[in-house]
Amino acid sequence: MNTDFIFTIVAQQGRARAGLFSTPHGSLQTPLFAPVGTQATVKSVTPLQLEELGAEMVLANTYHLYLRPGDSLVNRLGGLHEFMQWSHPILTDSGGFQVFSLAENRKIDDDGVTFKSHWDGTSHRFTPEKSIAIQENLGADIIMAFDECAPPDDRDYNERAMVRTHSWAERCLLSHRRNDQALFGIVQGGIFPDLREQSAGFIASLDFPGNAIGGLSVGETKLQMHAMLEIMDAVLPADKPRYLMGVGAPEDLVNGVLRGVDIFDCVLPTRLARHHAAITRTSRLNLLNAAHQDDPGPIDETCTCYTCQHFSRAYIRHLIIVKEMLAATLLTLHNLHTLLQLMRDLRQAIQKGTLESFAADFFATQERST
Amino acid sequence: MNTDFIFTIVAQQGRARAGLFSTPHGSLQTPLFAPVGTQATVKSVTPLQLEELGAEMVLANTYHLYLRPGDSLVNRLGGLHEFMQWSHPILTDSGGFQVFSLAENRKIDDDGVTFKSHWDGTSHRFTPEKSIAIQENLGADIIMAFDECAPPDDRDYNERAMVRTHSWAERCLLSHRRNDQALFGIVQGGIFPDLREQSAGFIASLDFPGNAIGGLSVGETKLQMHAMLEIMDAVLPADKPRYLMGVGAPEDLVNGVLRGVDIFDCVLPTRLARHHAAITRTSRLNLLNAAHQDDPGPIDETCTCYTCQHFSRAYIRHLIIVKEMLAATLLTLHNLHTLLQLMRDLRQAIQKGTLESFAADFFATQERST
Repeated sequence: MNTDFIFTIVAQQGRARAGLFSTPHGSLQTPLFAPVGTQATVKSVTPLQLEELGAEMVLANTYHLYLRPGDSLVNRLGGLHEFMQWSHPILTDSGGFQVFSLAENRKIDDDGVTFKSHWDGTSHRFTPEKSIAIQENLGADIIMAFDECAPPDDRDYNERAMVRTHSWAERCLLSHRRNDQALFGIVQGGIFPDLREQSAGFIASLDFPGNAIGGLSVGETKLQMHAMLEIMDAVLPADKPRYLMGVGAPEDLVNGVLRGVDIFDCVLPTRLARHHAAITRTSRLNLLNAAHQDDPGPIDETCTCYTCQHFSRAYIRHLIIVKEMLAATLLTLHNLHTLLQLMRDLRQAIQKGTLESFAADFFATQERST
Repeated sequence: MNTDFIFTIVAQQGRARAGLFSTPHGSLQTPLFAPVGTQATVKSVTPLQLEELGAEMVLANTYHLYLRPGDSLVNRLGGLHEFMQWSHPILTDSGGFQVFSLAENRKIDDDGVTFKSHWDGTSHRFTPEKSIAIQENLGADIIMAFDECAPPDDRDYNERAMVRTHSWAERCLLSHRRNDQALFGIVQGGIFPDLREQSAGFIASLDFPGNAIGGLSVGETKLQMHAMLEIMDAVLPADKPRYLMGVGAPEDLVNGVLRGVDIFDCVLPTRLARHHAAITRTSRLNLLNAAHQDDPGPIDETCTCYTCQHFSRAYIRHLIIVKEMLAATLLTLHNLHTLLQLMRDLRQAIQKGTLESFAADFFATQERST
């Protein structure tokens, strides 16, 4: 009997949970935020810097790694952990979301998706079985079922995509062989409560070691997202981790945790960093703004990250203006620290039973909506 | 009496010296290589990473910092050490070399140089006094006299540039006020032994706390460079540090040390890193080369840097191909480590009296000329 992929809830407050999820590369402390390393690197930082930030898991992208450098190459070189030198847990997505984002360059049928590479236009095909085979080659600890993510408010499309997602989930389960990987199912259903309930019920019935919530944070309103999360919380099994895909704004993390979500990932902190923006717990700052030109203060007086402990806003603005790479590195270190520290604080609040006041303080100090 | 800027020779072998040069930000162990941080950042790495590499001094550029963010701003923010968060020694060049490189966009007269900014075409003027004033605002430990660097083989131009360089050196000395900065003079004279001898004699007579050798590594042959270095060694005072500007290829560092040079700087390791090339002690490698596609080995089996202790050539090639910033960071860490370790080994060899065999081994194992 494999002792991996056991989820233990160590504390609970309301619907929020503090948990431990065991994997072959160590236990994850939830709730947690996973930085995204699309192409087997979290942009602008080294694995050592990520480790020093206290990141517990990184996400890598199946679509991207299948195309470059190829999953067989990664496999021959010992798998993704060895390849990118991340000795802690890794999660790979199924490639579905990227493939469906190719718009004109993909064709979906009930068996799978044919698409053109964004690199060179060559034609490729993903099926549920192919996605699992690639993810087995990559060798992440948590892998994802191949799903179809429809525009959130298109009822007909969401009905069809949900049916397909369910059938593909079953095929993924059947084809998955490696027992050192946890395969998570994905719930779809757009912003439609009945579809979400139906999808969550079906995915739950397949008894995955963890369940993901897909198709959110893709254009719907915050209220719609919250309503869907509440349905998921009611239907998905409480004793398995829930993963809200593609969510990473501070207020969304807090709202997700309050509604029973355990795992999050998002490109937001790394992407914003490359576009000169800093995330703080209360607001968002554009460091290119002329207001920072002479400012000797850090991004955030209260922040304990390397960037805030050392560098002035004026220096970071200078780096941005003269197009120096260090700007993206310093902002990435800060943004990741902000989200990782928020998750640690949320976990601690759940354990101490102070989540309600923590969340109230958090929302009271928000300076503008992200 | 200021105890800074005292140069102590702790060991000598042939013309090579191992020394200590005291500065307000700590003692430098020579011979040393200074990484270049043109715009107040060594490209692709953080100051912490530089410190962990054992870098002792970084160079920053007067021309660049005068234009962006402006030396007054740097001064208001506490000077360059505080601005870029480098607590160890810093050297600034005079801006001369950059200004003369502007070709069509500058006009030289005996009083100074009028030039156009590469950023926005605005007109500016540097004189020896202005260069010193900017360098005083920046606040580096070692600052450089404003000089004129002529094409190495143009006799007439070198005669004129030398006379101007000498007159400007006197004006720099007269206008320099801060006694927490060491102003170094610069020898010019192209590839002409009589001019080099004359220039070294004149600059030596001005009694700077250190002397630099300019106008080399700008197109002359290796043999010409070595001949000039031998003249410098004979004429420049032995009890003051000698700084060979703009030199950084491993064989040039060894050749320089063998001819009595103490300090070097060069953009080579950081620039090559951004162009996919790794420097090893014996050769140079282009990591983009298809030969590295499946290679699980490090850049250099014998190297102890973070990059070589962790990452395969195959991974670095992948990062280059998919245009990830981490490629430049990993190659920069490796290249800087290679040069810094070479300098530490040279110093140790001088102290142990084994420099001759060290150099013989070094040259015997060179796989191709850099």
